[in-house]
Amino acid sequence: MMKPEYVLGIDIGGTKIAVGLVDAKGRQVAGDRTPTQPDTPPEKTINRMLDLCRALIRRAGINKESVRAIGIAFAGPMDPLEGRIKNPPNLPGWHGLPLVSMVQENLGMPTYIENDANAAALGEARFGAGVGVENMVYMTVSTGVGGGAVLDGRLYRGETGSACELGHITLVHNGRECGCGAKGCLEAYASGTALAKRAKEVVRSGERSVLADLAGDVDNITAKTVVQAMQQGDELARRLWDETMEYLGAGVVSVVNIFNPRLVVLGGGLTNTGEILFIPVREAVKRLAMAPLAEVVDIVPAKLGDAVGVIGAAAVAFEKAPGATNVSK
Amino acid sequence: MMKPEYVLGIDIGGTKIAVGLVDAKGRQVAGDRTPTQPDTPPEKTINRMLDLCRALIRRAGINKESVRAIGIAFAGPMDPLEGRIKNPPNLPGWHGLPLVSMVQENLGMPTYIENDANAAALGEARFGAGVGVENMVYMTVSTGVGGGAVLDGRLYRGETGSACELGHITLVHNGRECGCGAKGCLEAYASGTALAKRAKEVVRSGERSVLADLAGDVDNITAKTVVQAMQQGDELARRLWDETMEYLGAGVVSVVNIFNPRLVVLGGGLTNTGEILFIPVREAVKRLAMAPLAEVVDIVPAKLGDAVGVIGAAAVAFEKAPGATNVSK
Repeated sequence: MMKPEYVLGIDIGGTKIAVGLVDAKGRQVAGDRTPTQPDTPPEKTINRMLDLCRALIRRAGINKESVRAIGIAFAGPMDPLEGRIKNPPNLPGWHGLPLVSMVQENLGMPTYIENDANAAALGEARFGAGVGVENMVYMTVSTGVGGGAVLDGRLYRGETGSACELGHITLVHNGRECGCGAKGCLEAYASGTALAKRAKEVVRSGERSVLADLAGDVDNITAKTVVQAMQQGDELARRLWDETMEYLGAGVVSVVNIFNPRLVVLGGGLTNTGEILFIPVREAVKRLAMAPLAEVVDIVPAKLGDAVGVIGAAAVAFEKAPGATNVSK
Repeated sequence: MMKPEYVLGIDIGGTKIAVGLVDAKGRQVAGDRTPTQPDTPPEKTINRMLDLCRALIRRAGINKESVRAIGIAFAGPMDPLEGRIKNPPNLPGWHGLPLVSMVQENLGMPTYIENDANAAALGEARFGAGVGVENMVYMTVSTGVGGGAVLDGRLYRGETGSACELGHITLVHNGRECGCGAKGCLEAYASGTALAKRAKEVVRSGERSVLADLAGDVDNITAKTVVQAMQQGDELARRLWDETMEYLGAGVVSVVNIFNPRLVVLGGGLTNTGEILFIPVREAVKRLAMAPLAEVVDIVPAKLGDAVGVIGAAAVAFEKAPGATNVSK
């Protein structure tokens, strides 16, 4: 029997850092978290994070030698080869930080970094909804829309590690302004943020709805409020949801026509609504994607839930670490 | 010194079949063509094609043993693993034909098939505009819009060999009807056919223009007429062209945001217009694609011209043939 092997998965987001010790089957055997605190110097935050990692290994009672590598999923742009952070919008103080070498030197293990959406895609492919699938696209529909793709069994990173900015497929030529500076992007129509924004607009314009009452105030309306109102029979909320699903469906149709995948895995907050999201999206793909491509694709929910950050980071580590169990097939 | 190696490249389109003997540097040393004649039984057409291939080898005066494999680029859907044609819209009589085994048995060489856009992408990557590039997307802008992608140095085929239907990215939600059955696809806005159709519409609506005179009749207006009229200073033609370029630019922006490529290679009839196409498309990418992705990508013309079919088919053969020179790196 082979000796047990572990990696450390580190998920660095704008508000929290989660760390986990993950085995070769993608099971998190121990985990912890700490706030990111964008206002404190990043070195301090990183030291806290490193302490958590060391404590995790001690607490798990395993030999440090059996931890083979570290994977980091980072919510922002970076140079994955240099391992350096580049202008992260949520963590401005982290710009230029040689994060990979800092972690590697302090913990004495090979360390790899990937943007969070790519890491999540790899996590779902190796340990989640996409196990055994060669061609899979992961889309996260949350405050934003992002994604990653595992093609021919391997994570596709693109020329600079930024592939699959699926939220920034143009969906409505000259449409709503998007945070990226362009207009009409999928993210400006089918994200939770876009849904909430649109809901506020129409409630302010005077349309009848329970939305403002449910939220306490127009300003507090979120995507969740829209879903709640819809479940209470609110017609405006239903219309807003249907519109959003139509846009999301069109985005997934583009993804299917571009990647000819076996699987599209949808994750992120908005997808927790379940069938009210999956039914219209599947219907759109069946109706609008090219027939031979629509025939072979399934649209399924992500499996890893909130653990996708840590497990995805761990999948990156398993894939890249020399000598670690190759989980790539 | 290694012995010279060749492959046969066969390019089967709706109107003609081109065959060529291609060396390991992508040079066509001999070539010929024959009409496809959709109305004659496909077996007859294929026999003519096989005779051309045999004659080509004889004429070139090379040893048959030095021809290592055959690649076929086919303009229509197929099962690339089974090598069987599936419902090709331009060649309905060819449905179900086991083309690969027919060619293989008759010519006694390993034979491989790929759809024409994928083969063209591989051809440009190995022997054309994309030599040495790891991540390249090829887009053809002609009567339709199609494409293929070479990712991490390898042709990406997708689950059923139909990846990169780039003409069917949704560009205008609920926009113009597309031949694929969906609405608002890139192809319905940025193909030569779409440009001609739009020109006919506006001329018929009574707008002043030299377009009808140039074409002889409104019905005869083509994309070429629009370009000619524009070069003569026709304002309507200029507006139609600018609109088309805006749509094409938006499509290329989506491609850049999705693939994070080093290179986008644009080929096909409409791109022969040169700078009047490349300048606005490059400008759109610079202005609208995500900044880190826009920084690393170049938008360049295809290099193989009309030979892309045969050379692309040859690239498929070189990539797949056992024992042939591996041109993939």
